[in-house]
Parts: sequence; structure tokens; C-alpha cells
Amino acid sequence: MYSSAVLQWDQETYMPPASADLRGRQLATLAGYAHELNTSAELGKLLQELKNDASLTDQQKANIRESLRDYDMRTKYPAQFVEDMSLAISKAFNAWQQAKKQNDFKLFEKELEVIVDFKLREAELLGYNDHPYDALLDQYEPGATVAQIRTLFADVKDQLVDFVKSITPFQVDSAFMSRHYPAQKQWDFGIQVLKDMGYDFNAGRQDKSSHPFTTSFSPHDVRVTTRINENDLHEMIWSTIHEGGHALYEQGIMAENYGLPMGEAVSLGIHESQSRLWENNVGRSLNYWKHYYPQLQHLFPESLKGIELMQFYKAMNEVKPSLIRTNADELTYHFHIMIRFGIEVMLLEKKVKVAELPELWNSLYKQYLGLDVPSASQGVLQDVHWSHGSFGYFPTYSIGSFYAAQFFAAAQKQIPGLDNQIESGQYAQLREWLRNTIHVHGKHYSADELCRRITGESLNFTYFMDYAKQKYTAMK
Amino acid sequence: MYSSAVLQWDQETYMPPASADLRGRQLATLAGYAHELNTSAELGKLLQELKNDASLTDQQKANIRESLRDYDMRTKYPAQFVEDMSLAISKAFNAWQQAKKQNDFKLFEKELEVIVDFKLREAELLGYNDHPYDALLDQYEPGATVAQIRTLFADVKDQLVDFVKSITPFQVDSAFMSRHYPAQKQWDFGIQVLKDMGYDFNAGRQDKSSHPFTTSFSPHDVRVTTRINENDLHEMIWSTIHEGGHALYEQGIMAENYGLPMGEAVSLGIHESQSRLWENNVGRSLNYWKHYYPQLQHLFPESLKGIELMQFYKAMNEVKPSLIRTNADELTYHFHIMIRFGIEVMLLEKKVKVAELPELWNSLYKQYLGLDVPSASQGVLQDVHWSHGSFGYFPTYSIGSFYAAQFFAAAQKQIPGLDNQIESGQYAQLREWLRNTIHVHGKHYSADELCRRITGESLNFTYFMDYAKQKYTAMK
Repeated sequence: MYSSAVLQWDQETYMPPASADLRGRQLATLAGYAHELNTSAELGKLLQELKNDASLTDQQKANIRESLRDYDMRTKYPAQFVEDMSLAISKAFNAWQQAKKQNDFKLFEKELEVIVDFKLREAELLGYNDHPYDALLDQYEPGATVAQIRTLFADVKDQLVDFVKSITPFQVDSAFMSRHYPAQKQWDFGIQVLKDMGYDFNAGRQDKSSHPFTTSFSPHDVRVTTRINENDLHEMIWSTIHEGGHALYEQGIMAENYGLPMGEAVSLGIHESQSRLWENNVGRSLNYWKHYYPQLQHLFPESLKGIELMQFYKAMNEVKPSLIRTNADELTYHFHIMIRFGIEVMLLEKKVKVAELPELWNSLYKQYLGLDVPSASQGVLQDVHWSHGSFGYFPTYSIGSFYAAQFFAAAQKQIPGLDNQIESGQYAQLREWLRNTIHVHGKHYSADELCRRITGESLNFTYFMDYAKQKYTAMK
Repeated sequence: MYSSAVLQWDQETYMPPASADLRGRQLATLAGYAHELNTSAELGKLLQELKNDASLTDQQKANIRESLRDYDMRTKYPAQFVEDMSLAISKAFNAWQQAKKQNDFKLFEKELEVIVDFKLREAELLGYNDHPYDALLDQYEPGATVAQIRTLFADVKDQLVDFVKSITPFQVDSAFMSRHYPAQKQWDFGIQVLKDMGYDFNAGRQDKSSHPFTTSFSPHDVRVTTRINENDLHEMIWSTIHEGGHALYEQGIMAENYGLPMGEAVSLGIHESQSRLWENNVGRSLNYWKHYYPQLQHLFPESLKGIELMQFYKAMNEVKPSLIRTNADELTYHFHIMIRFGIEVMLLEKKVKVAELPELWNSLYKQYLGLDVPSASQGVLQDVHWSHGSFGYFPTYSIGSFYAAQFFAAAQKQIPGLDNQIESGQYAQLREWLRNTIHVHGKHYSADELCRRITGESLNFTYFMDYAKQKYTAMK
């Protein structure tokens, strides 16, 4: 419901502190109405009737198909279950906050057990063919399965782990990234970057928030936020390009489909592919910085004095295994996701107990990232997701990057001179290509159909691996 | 519905231009849900049951009483009527915009006739004892009647018209008010003024908008906006104090009554009394500027060089008949309202035809303000209200000022040393007095009950007239 999105945006940007409690009630009220409308018998009857209406256009049929899918999913939840789980999540979230603060997994253990139990029951309610996790995954990435993601991560394990070992330790002096970069100049640069990408400020705006995000109230009002750290140039740049990619997707959706599935993004993975394509494949490329680095040097003459383009480029692409997912580079990032996915599946399969998670976590970080985890706060407790009950969400981050690499490879084939365009700061053709192949279709095609239409094959890890190899081998 | 208020606030402050059309749909959707809930048979049944529940507290009884009043009013409108009127208003608004732009009343005439017709039908639907206008008035100022307002304006006509003649032309050189006053310094001064009034920035914020307003999402989130003109110090100062007064009312409401009538303001007139009390009785007083003027001079040393306190004070209180209501001083303002009220009543009584309005308007402006109206845009077409179908709204502006004077006279009696407190920038006692006598009660008492509880008598014009006489006689 788009009105809730406005209230949430406000909550993250301009809302005064004392407003928090009653804003929570306002959002709950809206969510309640929305749920009532979306699960009404009247709606179900109407959708069933329209399902068999042969006179509908393809688009209309797709709208009915997706609406029915949502309706069927929503009506599988008994009201009592929703209420109980919502309460459990609220408790788990508080417990997680305490546990992280006090660096004590025990404080979260019981509540997480409850959540895992709810997730298993939820999977049963929703139904699945092969694996309970499929039911949860399907909420974020319709059509994705444990089997498919296992295949992807098997490739990650077989190919990426060794490749990262081969290029690390990564040789670059990146200390200059922590020099002083005045906030206003960073802000201005970010705005320019968004404008150049083709983000339409007439139908959007940028504000500040503690966690950058993109939100859409309609294709005519898609807003991004960023975070600026005066002692770290990374944060603003990556958040801006990343959110800009998400925002172009939302702005590219057809306004005439507002409120309908054809006016919505395919899946979280496809959404993430749009942010990652701009962030990684475009924004982390040498061509990109050939264009922008002189501007950056002009903006920050002191802090970037004597830093050559290649040193800057390497610093922006430094690969270094680290403990915290959100700070990870574009390669080791996927080890973080692989570990979480593995743990989530094991929890649902009851192959590991919640109490054993810290130990399991630490051993996996040692195995894949070569790191000793010094504390639960920097380990198993670092992410909020599980306390929110978001099981099946993490894999969409990796899927997004892999889709991005596969889409970008197709774009390079289909758009003559794309690399040169990027080098000269011209993104119009790439943006229009993404718009026409992905954005305008809304939920018309499934993620897999879309991927096959664009690239001729289903999602596979090859393209990401090729991209990584080519880029980092050249950088050595 | 508070969520709609968030969307409207956003619309006036930060919303990107392209968002307008779909935001309109979002607001319409929310309004539709709200209407459905507020007119449901279930709600009516529940309220009727509770009406006869003897176990309720006084507060609960008042909640039921007011909820029933709203419910009864809302359920008197047939859905078709609401839809038709909404369409007519939309047409009338567009026509009014065109007419004002092209300075041609004819372009608005037909649409205004339709609106007047709808308002007469609306009055019949709602029902009334004496006068169809009473039914419309009751929506904004419950309990107010044409008879009561006629009495007030008879006093205005008898006393204020002659008094204004006796003090005009008003002798002051106020040209300095149009010197350059930098925006940021004005902004900072306004923030200080709000803080001094006791406006809680922890539960609110100020932003800019083209028309200043106050909006409340809950007592914990009450926001104001202001408008800054670098070449006119008036605009920011009066809008800030005025909206600050409205905001203190909303922040003073009990959060525990959120969503209930006891958590809502009594009426538009009482709301306006809070803004006008701060704006006129406090903000336009000599004591107020004894405190603030030195600060202002310090902020704007160039533009206020050589301007003594008394000259500034007189400039801030200049009385000068003018064509445009929103620019009027605190005395002649009521002539504008009196004229509009008179016309609205005549329209409903069919004593004047819409086509005759420009002529009537111009003759009344000549009669009461001594001015020739040069164009319809600066005359009968200046206000948006009629195109919105807001008949019965204008009188609440005057009622508010008259209540303010009556309340302030009571405050002066009940708070020892109030004038000295104002002179030293101390408003805590006044604010708490307003909070305890008015704000915390929500809709517990009617406007008239509230006025009698506080001042011992019903609203009458004497206090405003005394205030005006005392102040402007001393200024001569």
C-alpha cells in the first residue's frame, strides 16, 4: 500500500522522535485495512471469475494471474497465526537488539527458536513441493528453489572461493579514502551522479537517512536516501549508485499500471539486479572512473592530491575478507550470503539447533573467509533479518548480483559501444535498454522468463565469475 | 484520518512535482476507506448501544456523544450526492483558477451557481432549525448559528467600522519592513520564537511551504510550515506565531485520547482562537516587542538601523484598509469576513444571484473599506473557498479572533503579572493556562461551554473591541 510507504519514508527522514509510538499505530491501522481488503471473499470471487474470462488481453490476464497468486498466498494465513507471529517477531526483535548490544547470543536464543518454529509452520501453511524453505523463498523470489540456489552456491564454493584466495591479499594503499571529504560536496556529487544515470528529479528526490533506501509511491514519485560519512568516501558513492539503480527500475514502470501487478517489480532478486548492475558492473568499472575521477579530484583537491586514477580505481575495488556483510566487497559478499543461506536451510531441516549457531557461524567464517570471529555481535548477531522473521530473504542479494552480471553481458552484446559510452558518462542507451527489457514489463514475466528473454538462458553463475575474473585479473 | 494528513503534509513540502496526479488517487483511496469505516452500519449499531451504557465515565460518554454526532452527519449523505458534489467542486475549482487568472468572473459563474445549489441541498440533507446556513456552519463550528454571527457582525458594523475610521489614515513610516532580510536569519529567528512559545521540536518540526499551515498526525507529531519573503519581514513573523499557536493546541491534546473525539480540537473557531491569541494578543503587543526587538535589531543591523522600538511596533500594527483579506491588519480583517458572510447568507436565501456578486462585492468594499475594487481577481475571485464548496467556513476566522480577545482578557485576570512575563519573554504560565483550560479537554465541552467555563459568559464582541480601543488609542 503506497500510503504506508509515505509514512515509512517520513519515519526514516523527517519524523520527530516523539512521534515513533503513534506512527507505529498508524502504520498498523493501514496494514490492517490493507489486509482486510486483500483477503476479502469478494475480491477472491471477482478474481476467480476474471481468471476464466477469455476476452482479457495478455496484460490483463497477467494481472489476474499475479493478483490471484497474492490472494491465494494471503488467504492461507489464519488471523490468529498472523497475530501470534507478529507478536513473536516483536519480541525477537527486542531480544536481538539486547543480545547484540550485550554481545550475548543467549539473550536471543529462545526467541529465535520460536521464530524458526513459526517459519516451519508458515511453510506448511503455504505449501511446497520439495523443501519447506521453497515456500519462504517464494515470497521474495517467486519461483526460486533451494535446489536452484544450492547449484549457484556450489559454483560460488567451487570457483569464487579459490579465485578470491588467488587475488588476496589485495595490493593497494586505500588509506586516502578515509581522509576528509566535506559533506556538502559529497552531496552535490551524488546528485550529479543520479542525474547522469537518468534518475528523474521531477519524479523523485534524495534525502538523508541512517540506512539508505529507495521507496516508491508511484512511478511518478520514487525517492532515494543516502548517508554521508565525511571520513569515508565509499558510503555515499556506493549507496547513491545502488539506490539510483533501484530507483530507475521504479521510475521505469508504466504509470498506467499503477496499483496493478503489471506496475510492480518482478522480484527482490530482479530489483537487486538493477541496483547491482549500476553499482558493480557500471559503477565499479575503470571506464566509469575515467569519466568521474577527474571531477572528484576537482571537488576534493586536498584529499585526492597525488592519487592516480588506477590507485583510486583499485581502492574502490579492494577485495578483503571481512566480518561484516554490509561492508563486504563485491566478491566476498557472496560468502556471507552463502553462509546465511546454508544456516537457514539447516535450521529448517533441523540439522542444527539454534543454540549451536554461534559455533557453526564461526567455523563457516573461518572456512570461507579465513577469519576468526571475535564476538557474537560481529558474528551471528550482526544482521536484523532473522529477528524480523525474514528467512529466505538473504539469497536474493546474491541472486541479484548474478542476474546483474548476466544482464550486463547481454547489454554489452546488444548495445554497440556501451563501454565507450560509460567512459564518456553517457548512460542513456543502457538505461533505455534496461527500461525496455525489464522495467516496463512489471510482473508480466517471471524472473526466469525475463532472464531467458533477455539473455537466452536461465540464471547461472558463469557470467558473474567471468566478470570477476576478467576485472580482477586485469587489475593485478 | 491521520495517515492522509501525512500525505498532505508531504504534498505541500517535499513531494516532487510529477507525483501530483497519483498522490491525488492515493488520498482519494484513503478517503474512501475512511468514509466506508465511518459510515458502516456496524459502527452505528455499536455507538447506539454505548450511548445507553450507564457505566461509562464522563469522558467516555463525551466520546460516544461526539462520535454519534459525526456518524449521524456522515450517514446523511447519499453516496451519489457525495460523488456528484465532489465532481462539481473539482470543476468549480478549475473554473475559479481560470477565472482568477483571466480576471473574468463569467468563467466561474455557472460553476459557482452549481455549488450554491449543492450547498442548499446539503443543508436540507443535514437539516436545521432556523436557517439553511446553520447546517453548513455547524460542520466547522458546531453549535454556531446565523443569528449568533449576525449579532457579532452587527457589533463589528456599529463599533469597529467607526473606530477604524477614527484611527486612519494611520501615521507610520513602515517602508523599512520591505528592506532586505536574509532568509536564513529569518528562519533562525522563527525557530527561536517557536521554542520560546514552548512548541516542542521533539514532537514536531518546521518546514517551508507556499502557504503556511499546521498539521497534526498525533499530539506527538505536530508540524508547522512557514513562508519566508526576504523583502517583507511580516510574512515569516506572523505566520510563525500564528501557526505556533495552532500547534500548541495540537501538542497540548492528551496523547491517551489519540483517535478519539477527546483527542480532537473543539471547532475551527476555537482552533483559530489559539493562533490569534498568540498572534494578536501576545505577538502584536508592545511588551512582546520590548523583548524581541533588540534581538531583531541585532540580527538585521543594516535594515533596522535607526528604527526605534515604537516605530517598529507601529509598523507591525499598521491599520490600513486593503483589498486582499490575507494581507489585512487585525482590525479591518473582520470587514472582509463580514462581507463574505453576508454574501454567503444572501446566496442561500436567494436574495442575490451569482451573476450579481461582482457588483455586490464591489459596493460592500466601497461601503466598509472605502476602496474601489479594480478587478475581479482582486475582488470577488480572490479566495479559493467557494470553489471548494466551503460555505460557512469564513466566519470561524472572525469568531477565532473574538474568542482570543475574550480568553486573553480572562488570562490577564487569572495569571498575575502576565504582561510582565510577556515583556521578559516568559510564556510558560500562559501556555500552561491555555493547555489546562482548553487543550487537554479535546471535544469534552462545546465551544460555548468552554467559553463560559473560562470567561464566565458566552462569546461576545466586547473584549475584542476593548482590546482594539485600548491598544490603538495608546498608540496614537
